[in-house]
Amino acid sequence: MKIDRGRVGEKSAPVSYTYGWKDVVVYALGVGAKLDELDYLFEKDGPRVLPTFAVVPAWSALEAASASTGADPTMLLHGEHKIRLHRPIPPRGEVYTIAEVTGIYDKGKGALVTIHAETVDDEGDPVCENWFAAFVRGAGGFGGDRGAEAVRADPPDGRAPDFAMTERTLPEQAALYRLSGDLNPLHISPEFARRSGFDRPILHGLCTYGYAGRAVLRHACGGDASRLRSFAARFAGVVFPGDALTTEGWRVEPGRWVLRTKTQDGRIVLANSVAETT
Amino acid sequence: MKIDRGRVGEKSAPVSYTYGWKDVVVYALGVGAKLDELDYLFEKDGPRVLPTFAVVPAWSALEAASASTGADPTMLLHGEHKIRLHRPIPPRGEVYTIAEVTGIYDKGKGALVTIHAETVDDEGDPVCENWFAAFVRGAGGFGGDRGAEAVRADPPDGRAPDFAMTERTLPEQAALYRLSGDLNPLHISPEFARRSGFDRPILHGLCTYGYAGRAVLRHACGGDASRLRSFAARFAGVVFPGDALTTEGWRVEPGRWVLRTKTQDGRIVLANSVAETT
Repeated sequence: MKIDRGRVGEKSAPVSYTYGWKDVVVYALGVGAKLDELDYLFEKDGPRVLPTFAVVPAWSALEAASASTGADPTMLLHGEHKIRLHRPIPPRGEVYTIAEVTGIYDKGKGALVTIHAETVDDEGDPVCENWFAAFVRGAGGFGGDRGAEAVRADPPDGRAPDFAMTERTLPEQAALYRLSGDLNPLHISPEFARRSGFDRPILHGLCTYGYAGRAVLRHACGGDASRLRSFAARFAGVVFPGDALTTEGWRVEPGRWVLRTKTQDGRIVLANSVAETT
Repeated sequence: MKIDRGRVGEKSAPVSYTYGWKDVVVYALGVGAKLDELDYLFEKDGPRVLPTFAVVPAWSALEAASASTGADPTMLLHGEHKIRLHRPIPPRGEVYTIAEVTGIYDKGKGALVTIHAETVDDEGDPVCENWFAAFVRGAGGFGGDRGAEAVRADPPDGRAPDFAMTERTLPEQAALYRLSGDLNPLHISPEFARRSGFDRPILHGLCTYGYAGRAVLRHACGGDASRLRSFAARFAGVVFPGDALTTEGWRVEPGRWVLRTKTQDGRIVLANSVAETT
């Protein structure tokens, strides 16, 4: 199927998402929250909401915007993601997301589709934004603009990280994470994964992103979710459920952290990652 | 609060429970289902439903019937449970449960409340039954009938089990299991657990029961959920999230298994346990 470049600049109708505390907790467990983060798992006085939960209310709108371009979802690889938080996400409620396809770029072998989404509460007040970029395999070569190269955000040369946090994911991590909305069978069906060129189902990039976000929350925000302003990352490598993830962080200037996440064998799986904090 | 024995024999109004495949999967993960039980975790062609999911649609009705006796929920310990399956539980739908308090017995230090619940589908066809028995601490001594002693079902003397299955629960197992409906803070709140006399939150008896049920399904039913007719157990000891559970099974006659579940230190946590299979 051809990518429809005519969609660029078009905004979706508002897509509603109604959620309760159980959705918040399913997400937290899906990205590996532990008992010592009890406020994110127990609804008494909350629960608190992990900042990266921002991707959940927007997911349907992002998927729909992506599909509106004609991109074959089975050929789509999530490439980059960024969230911006306008305030802590409420533990329950109804929110609305408007998504806009902001660009379709010709990367040769594939096309890069970029989408921006704004999520507001039922009063219309901004809650969070998402920037989503996906590589559509086999959809390039249409003679379009390549787009700008991504701004690089590398750890400072030779400097030890200011923090590192390692956790092992569960073999069932993708089965748990997908309950938060991304039902792509690539993450659960061995047969689908093989057809997509993987030995077995792979972890969602946004699940790894959630693990990294918890590391940022703990080590760059002192555990205070209201201090995270934005968090961006490129999905640089494949993670299998059961892999261990190590997120390292470098404070490169006040309120600005460069992050990197690796698996147990040293492969970088989140790169070009930056968090802004207050 | 005094127990109200006048409730015995009274049937509740039907309590509805509407569920989808995600509820089925949250339950399966809550009782430790693994990737090699993919049919119970992946909604394609289903998902299949673990037989012990039978407790989930009935839970609200059981809780309400228990509360109707005036039993203080913070003093209540689930003592025994039994399910009977009339057919495989559908992976989604709306079902109705009618619960009846069948007995309130005076055990001296506490009262034993027994409840029976029938769950039917939206055509009125039977799906499953639950028998629930809870010990209400401090509510005995009212001069009532002690009730019959439970029929004992012990493993045959000196005979090695026909199967044994060991799995370690997660520290977050109770946080995950409780999303299936039993929100008793005893299983998540360290403060509440301490006030109840425990060092830390304990695992739900019905979570351990679900682990044992998976062992029965695999080893006594050849993985075929339609072969399990009934499953009963007494909650004989405390399990902490993170404990390992070993379920052993003895085939004592065709279609009849005696089960026992122990923790890593050999403490028996499910006793008097019987499964009937076809």
